[in-house]
Amino acid sequence: MNKHTIGIIMNGVTGRMGTNQHLVRSILAIRKQGGVKVSDNETIWPEPLLIGRNENKLRALAEAHGGLKWSTDLAAALANSEYTVYFDAQTTNRRVEAVKQAIAAGKHIYCEKPTAENSSDAMELHRLAEAAGIKHGVVQDKLWLPGLMKLKRMIDSGFFGEILSVRGEFGYWVFTGHHEPAQRPSWNYRKADGGGIIIDMLCHWRYVVDNLFGEIKQLTCLGANHMKQRVDEQGKAYDADSDDAAYATFVTERGIICQFNSSWCTRVNRDELFEMHVDGTLGSAVCGLRNAKVQAAPATPRAVWNPDIPSPIAYRDGWLEAPDYMEFDNAFKAQWELFLRHVALDEPFRWSLKEAAKGVQLAELGLQSWQERRWLDVPELK
Amino acid sequence: MNKHTIGIIMNGVTGRMGTNQHLVRSILAIRKQGGVKVSDNETIWPEPLLIGRNENKLRALAEAHGGLKWSTDLAAALANSEYTVYFDAQTTNRRVEAVKQAIAAGKHIYCEKPTAENSSDAMELHRLAEAAGIKHGVVQDKLWLPGLMKLKRMIDSGFFGEILSVRGEFGYWVFTGHHEPAQRPSWNYRKADGGGIIIDMLCHWRYVVDNLFGEIKQLTCLGANHMKQRVDEQGKAYDADSDDAAYATFVTERGIICQFNSSWCTRVNRDELFEMHVDGTLGSAVCGLRNAKVQAAPATPRAVWNPDIPSPIAYRDGWLEAPDYMEFDNAFKAQWELFLRHVALDEPFRWSLKEAAKGVQLAELGLQSWQERRWLDVPELK
Amino acid sequence: MNKHTIGIIMNGVTGRMGTNQHLVRSILAIRKQGGVKVSDNETIWPEPLLIGRNENKLRALAEAHGGLKWSTDLAAALANSEYTVYFDAQTTNRRVEAVKQAIAAGKHIYCEKPTAENSSDAMELHRLAEAAGIKHGVVQDKLWLPGLMKLKRMIDSGFFGEILSVRGEFGYWVFTGHHEPAQRPSWNYRKADGGGIIIDMLCHWRYVVDNLFGEIKQLTCLGANHMKQRVDEQGKAYDADSDDAAYATFVTERGIICQFNSSWCTRVNRDELFEMHVDGTLGSAVCGLRNAKVQAAPATPRAVWNPDIPSPIAYRDGWLEAPDYMEFDNAFKAQWELFLRHVALDEPFRWSLKEAAKGVQLAELGLQSWQERRWLDVPELK
Amino acid sequence: MNKHTIGIIMNGVTGRMGTNQHLVRSILAIRKQGGVKVSDNETIWPEPLLIGRNENKLRALAEAHGGLKWSTDLAAALANSEYTVYFDAQTTNRRVEAVKQAIAAGKHIYCEKPTAENSSDAMELHRLAEAAGIKHGVVQDKLWLPGLMKLKRMIDSGFFGEILSVRGEFGYWVFTGHHEPAQRPSWNYRKADGGGIIIDMLCHWRYVVDNLFGEIKQLTCLGANHMKQRVDEQGKAYDADSDDAAYATFVTERGIICQFNSSWCTRVNRDELFEMHVDGTLGSAVCGLRNAKVQAAPATPRAVWNPDIPSPIAYRDGWLEAPDYMEFDNAFKAQWELFLRHVALDEPFRWSLKEAAKGVQLAELGLQSWQERRWLDVPELK
Repeated sequence: MNKHTIGIIMNGVTGRMGTNQHLVRSILAIRKQGGVKVSDNETIWPEPLLIGRNENKLRALAEAHGGLKWSTDLAAALANSEYTVYFDAQTTNRRVEAVKQAIAAGKHIYCEKPTAENSSDAMELHRLAEAAGIKHGVVQDKLWLPGLMKLKRMIDSGFFGEILSVRGEFGYWVFTGHHEPAQRPSWNYRKADGGGIIIDMLCHWRYVVDNLFGEIKQLTCLGANHMKQRVDEQGKAYDADSDDAAYATFVTERGIICQFNSSWCTRVNRDELFEMHVDGTLGSAVCGLRNAKVQAAPATPRAVWNPDIPSPIAYRDGWLEAPDYMEFDNAFKAQWELFLRHVALDEPFRWSLKEAAKGVQLAELGLQSWQERRWLDVPELK
Repeated sequence: MNKHTIGIIMNGVTGRMGTNQHLVRSILAIRKQGGVKVSDNETIWPEPLLIGRNENKLRALAEAHGGLKWSTDLAAALANSEYTVYFDAQTTNRRVEAVKQAIAAGKHIYCEKPTAENSSDAMELHRLAEAAGIKHGVVQDKLWLPGLMKLKRMIDSGFFGEILSVRGEFGYWVFTGHHEPAQRPSWNYRKADGGGIIIDMLCHWRYVVDNLFGEIKQLTCLGANHMKQRVDEQGKAYDADSDDAAYATFVTERGIICQFNSSWCTRVNRDELFEMHVDGTLGSAVCGLRNAKVQAAPATPRAVWNPDIPSPIAYRDGWLEAPDYMEFDNAFKAQWELFLRHVALDEPFRWSLKEAAKGVQLAELGLQSWQERRWLDVPELK
Repeated sequence: MNKHTIGIIMNGVTGRMGTNQHLVRSILAIRKQGGVKVSDNETIWPEPLLIGRNENKLRALAEAHGGLKWSTDLAAALANSEYTVYFDAQTTNRRVEAVKQAIAAGKHIYCEKPTAENSSDAMELHRLAEAAGIKHGVVQDKLWLPGLMKLKRMIDSGFFGEILSVRGEFGYWVFTGHHEPAQRPSWNYRKADGGGIIIDMLCHWRYVVDNLFGEIKQLTCLGANHMKQRVDEQGKAYDADSDDAAYATFVTERGIICQFNSSWCTRVNRDELFEMHVDGTLGSAVCGLRNAKVQAAPATPRAVWNPDIPSPIAYRDGWLEAPDYMEFDNAFKAQWELFLRHVALDEPFRWSLKEAAKGVQLAELGLQSWQERRWLDVPELK
Repeated sequence: MNKHTIGIIMNGVTGRMGTNQHLVRSILAIRKQGGVKVSDNETIWPEPLLIGRNENKLRALAEAHGGLKWSTDLAAALANSEYTVYFDAQTTNRRVEAVKQAIAAGKHIYCEKPTAENSSDAMELHRLAEAAGIKHGVVQDKLWLPGLMKLKRMIDSGFFGEILSVRGEFGYWVFTGHHEPAQRPSWNYRKADGGGIIIDMLCHWRYVVDNLFGEIKQLTCLGANHMKQRVDEQGKAYDADSDDAAYATFVTERGIICQFNSSWCTRVNRDELFEMHVDGTLGSAVCGLRNAKVQAAPATPRAVWNPDIPSPIAYRDGWLEAPDYMEFDNAFKAQWELFLRHVALDEPFRWSLKEAAKGVQLAELGLQSWQERRWLDVPELK
């Protein structure tokens, strides 16, 4: 049995996302299933070392999962040659510095998005990683959600014919906190604390669109600050001055128009919190996070405009659920497995630090477009 | 019994829209119900004179409805003082000339939209009408559709609290004609023949938005020519070079963001061919042409982002149908009755030739915004 | 870590309500969750001392919950400066005396309702507490039930517009015991033992109405003694001479008419044992103990009176469930936490011994109104 | 074949109620079925003579139903001995005078309610009728509605055991007219025009309660004027100063407490626009206009108060629909047949002009109780 053991320094996994998605549902789940099985006699085995600043939290986390190794000394960990991968899920403002250290120590890099607070820093990480010759990747988990995988499969199989346009709707009503607790942290709604839906969501739309519909070449974005006052975790009203809705349109290298709305101020009249409606010459699809439904050209009804009478056609009934074509793994775990194979087996892995920088770039351009009230080209990052 | 008889020269009613909506379902329906009842002893009685160029068609139409008066001599009709109203439902390129003659003859004017092929001509009609001191109006029928009336009532009654944003979706899949007959005339898809969805639909969005959400002050518009080849009524393929989808966003004087998509290249995943989703602080609504549904703030679910699991909430079930609050008349007839009351009783009528010009203006600005790739201000028409 | 430890003398917690709601689901539950968390480094920690008259019961209760401290010597407990709060859940007739001792000993007071058998005694407790400068409160748990919290949120958020009227229905069929065991103790149905639904329920309606719809200013109340004979716990028939239904109407300072029926002699045709139907200009709601449903004005059907035909409208379908907008804690525990914060942090706490006296007052006035067959004003308690 | 032909002077049947219910669905329907069949060889045959003031309307109505006899000359009709019954469905303010003339002419009297604008006039009609020795009756149609007949049957059959209490809920949301046409005429909401829900509904509650639960002996009534402004048929806002809700409680000679709410300002959370909930020792029922459901004692669930948990019992499921036990005729026609039998065959008919006066009396006492804020006894009319 050929066992590739890969030591992973996991920094910042005491947070909610780091613990649940990366540690428990990805790395520990991979260990539980016996590693990443490459062939009948070859597996990849991840060996985590938890790093953090709060000793109490780290110890508790490590013990809760059967006594994992942990340390508060990042430098020492980076100096330890047993660990060849550095993973970072810290808050964004701590990421650049730590990743640089890890690159300098010759570690392969895998980290959460956004990789930096601006695209120039994000690109610097990419340049350093390339110069150091190490392997690197960024978390772009949504691509492995069942709904998006179904959509990718439809695209690849030619279901749509030529894709004409895409309409993405993301959002829901985030309570203001005046009469009920809000479902999101208050810093999201304060500019000074790095809040805003453009910076939060356009990073996602970049890799979603790039991977499904081709590189984004142009964009326009209108931000809005709909709710001007909210109430924070301590019950105090505060000025909510960041953008809480963004109406963006992208044009990709293939000429596909992708309109993506993001809003924390909309009541949901959809089946899922995020849905993309894709229209193509041969068929259309509406894909959510997990489900997708399709209408092929021969099933398209002959709609005729006649507002005089109630609609004679029940349009929603003309769509058919796309069944699961496989068992879908956790999206984070799926990408982790690909990254581990990339490290161990040198398989290709296109979700690099450069892709991460592109996401940050798109958010920056979105804010600029909003301010300048015009379309912008998306230049290639150098 | 006080009976206001109003003679109406109806020009261009042999076309589908003119015959069905204006003659049969409006003027003749008003006669059938005994005129427009103003009070127990006062009515308005419309007396139509059909005008057209094709004698055969005219005679057939007149006879089919019990022997209406008709003539091919517009000049003579305009000279006849028994007729005080001129109505025009000809093709757009014939309208300006005929309306000018009617104004010169001192007739009150009521006509179909667009009133001219450009806003400068449209405004000239308005200026001439004002100078002549006659009454005038333009057809803006959508305002009297049940769905839009329900929406207007919700707005007026304060249901929404502060309105934040509106998302309008119009469109359906118009067959290209390659494998089936198309549902729309081919000239719609040829630039040279005045085709294009921007010129067709932005006139509508202007009055819909102005009347419901406040005057449009800024816009951006992205046109698209998704389907480049179509097949015409004779079965011949032709270059479809006009815009067949338009992605427009308006900002109104009240700061409401109104995103209106129009497309002949989308498969319908809605209940009706046109729907507006309106989000307000106290409630939201989705209004179509005839139906509307609402979700008040207390019924808004606590949505939490968790793509790991199937959505635990059936979001669509959280909406309630807004029942009919009255019996709705035909939209065209409803506006006709208001215009006749305007003529006979001097009641106010805000849908004037100036409003018509505003619609044309918005379409022009839409095309300009598309070309210049930027937001435009909407100047006041002078 | 700043830890406010608060010693609480809990008198009368061997009864069903005292054990279940106050000890287990409130104080012990707070301890289980690590205390009342005020901030990341500040908590409030309750330290109970169980007091009672039956040593066996006390010991058993204390042991059943991990060895709590207990004593039958109230005087000694009151003399112990480690305990700063006195809680009383004894039967009503023992409460006044014990609370007076506790006030004299300088303890803060928290107790079950009714605080006394008449409003004059209840007010005396309030006066003594104020004179002693201690903090005090009364249990008004219903206010923290999910259904009432949902209603409060609707009111605060402006959902109703102007509230016009409220119809509260409380009650269920309490078996007489002739052919089956009754679900309530027999003393409830004997005047001499302090029974009667008016004295039991009007205390509740006082704080429910005061807190939601404004102070009650006028009332009328009709009591009834529907079932004149019942069978007690020993299987013996007895004269059930107390009121077992009360039909009361209140008018609040805001002019809202609140009709509250309470009955132990009604078969339930509701979703919950207590429901309030609230009608406002912009919307209505039906709120129970846990659930609530709403109908906003735009969803209000156009009902037309026509008994000739079956109802063409399914009225019940025109209501939408108000979803949980947060996770609701046990109602008793929620109020306990607020009282502990009041004691430790001096946060406001409006449910004082004066509020308790108001409840007793309303019950007294209810009985008087019934006897005098007229409306009464509700004077301010001095 | 013994055929009792009864000539009926029908005054005021050009109104909506008179035409539809009394002429078409009652008298003409009786003629269509071959008269009121008394036995195999005996029928009663009504022969109507339509009386009114508007010749055009009368002629049109008469012709529309196959050429009925009509006249505008009431005096002549009353002088015609072929007609032995006088029926009055005019507006209330014309009724007393006309009925007096008819009594003086020796006609039997049948008329709509209220028979007069005050109980003293109403009683005078009764005295005159008695003095003249003629037969007389008043329309109390609700008693023959399917739902009320089912309830009467339950009462008579002993289903309830001893009836304890009744809760009647009548009402629905009458649009104010601000944003939609109202469903009721504006005079209903103006005091000066005889509007108000107390005067409208308490007449009904009198005969409903008297017939089902025993004579009303005491009452209290609280009126309310919830909506202070409405918009009339001409679109003009007006002061709506009459009572639009009434919260009344009656106690009957049998000691049954009957709480009857009437409101034009409530959103319906019932199956029908009027429902009575009747609780008795052996069972309960909820009866509407057409349907009724029951819960017998053995089916009564053991409800236990526990707001800590969601209701473990689906209370509404514990009721069973009472099926139609016969085919129900139109309620107006059913009473007409009884009156015709009373005239022709001298069968008893308890719904006399005295009963009519009682209804007016109850409305008067309701208004008085509201003003004096107290319970009133209901004296016997002399």
